[in-house]
Amino acid sequence: MKLDVVFTPEGLSAHDLQGRPVFVIDTLRATTVMCAALAGGARGIIPTSSTEEAMKLAQNLESQDVLLCGERNAARIPGYALGNSPLEMTEDAVRGKTLIMTTTNGTRAVLAAAGGHPVYLAAAVNLQVAAARAREVLAETGDLLILCAGRASSFAIEDAYTAGRLTFAAMGERWIRKGLNDAAVASLDLVRLYGRRWDRPLGRSTAARELRAAGFEDDVTASAEEDRWPVLPQFHDRRVTLAPASQPAGPPAL
Amino acid sequence: MKLDVVFTPEGLSAHDLQGRPVFVIDTLRATTVMCAALAGGARGIIPTSSTEEAMKLAQNLESQDVLLCGERNAARIPGYALGNSPLEMTEDAVRGKTLIMTTTNGTRAVLAAAGGHPVYLAAAVNLQVAAARAREVLAETGDLLILCAGRASSFAIEDAYTAGRLTFAAMGERWIRKGLNDAAVASLDLVRLYGRRWDRPLGRSTAARELRAAGFEDDVTASAEEDRWPVLPQFHDRRVTLAPASQPAGPPAL
Repeated sequence: MKLDVVFTPEGLSAHDLQGRPVFVIDTLRATTVMCAALAGGARGIIPTSSTEEAMKLAQNLESQDVLLCGERNAARIPGYALGNSPLEMTEDAVRGKTLIMTTTNGTRAVLAAAGGHPVYLAAAVNLQVAAARAREVLAETGDLLILCAGRASSFAIEDAYTAGRLTFAAMGERWIRKGLNDAAVASLDLVRLYGRRWDRPLGRSTAARELRAAGFEDDVTASAEEDRWPVLPQFHDRRVTLAPASQPAGPPAL
Repeated sequence: MKLDVVFTPEGLSAHDLQGRPVFVIDTLRATTVMCAALAGGARGIIPTSSTEEAMKLAQNLESQDVLLCGERNAARIPGYALGNSPLEMTEDAVRGKTLIMTTTNGTRAVLAAAGGHPVYLAAAVNLQVAAARAREVLAETGDLLILCAGRASSFAIEDAYTAGRLTFAAMGERWIRKGLNDAAVASLDLVRLYGRRWDRPLGRSTAARELRAAGFEDDVTASAEEDRWPVLPQFHDRRVTLAPASQPAGPPAL
């Protein structure tokens, strides 16, 4: 059994993840936003590494069903339909649309995971559905890589805590260290320390402080709401869509 | 007040540390070894990034007082006088010598800190003397960067815990988060969890496991011995020597 956590995409080589099952985490805010968008009925999200690539792709697709979304320094990119706020991803805004997305850290981390298989996205807002899949995958393959987006090439505590929650779930909620790399152990240690409450590790993070300063207090609150958007996004063939066996939560069928 | 911890030299730009006071940590084993060597009377240590550079430098210096030391995959490099074991750095072996050193992670981290000023080295074996200086520096300048060597570009829990101990000391042994980056907060969290005992974070690390498997059990034990070699190494002008105000512990003068 092998479970690795990696705190930033830097230093991760294609060799490290080739063919491995991967979960990508950018709790504030990209993977949260992708959960919200898919829960709101978006057809898919295409992560891009630059605004230039996003623009070129939008021109090539030439469709009314395509929306540009993303941020630089937390703010919506000028001319884009949407920013990087989960609260913008309402059904009215995104149902049936394909989102072309570029953010500072999150989309880069998703793209860095391209060599993995399968590649899922996780955050607080889809924790239980991601956790259930992580546990299945680890039981089936004995292998798991959890890749945190981090912030500006550095450690981000909200991603590390989320990685710890996912690790804890994947290990069957047992405090086992065997097979874990040091970053996975430290992530579990954060869970031992903070318990199941998101507000402390997430609310006190540098990312949260900067988002509040930029007027996104509500995003921080929404991003800390466990299972608010219980869908499982999967990154495959350059596109993020709902994972095959996952359905967005909704009212029971009549 | 600003105190940053960085878990690996990757992602650290020269701009991040230019002119800042820096402490470099590679608890298993390079900064421990440098403390042991200076405590044993070595004149200085020249860290190099490759075996080629080490060999060229040794040839240029052409002196009997120069020793090559270092490791690849934990083992002494063939032809070198010394490996990377603190227990090899006896007075007989190193007194009056200049060591040219190359290791997998540690020397690289020291070299990455070259833009900082001043640059000190820390480990468990010199914790209190390093902590005292860290506290002074933070009080004087309001700024501190703690750079962990990590392992193969990844997070190493023993370095993070050492960074947490140094952070805790620099903050006057108070649990303050203000001015700390996320990595510093997480490092402090490890101290909250593990307390003052080195054996758990250090003994259970991946690095310790690999050292034991390679026959270096005694190195792990020695490296976890707080204040065993209470000297303060400083990196300046490409060379590691005793920091000006620091003296190796020894018998009192008669």
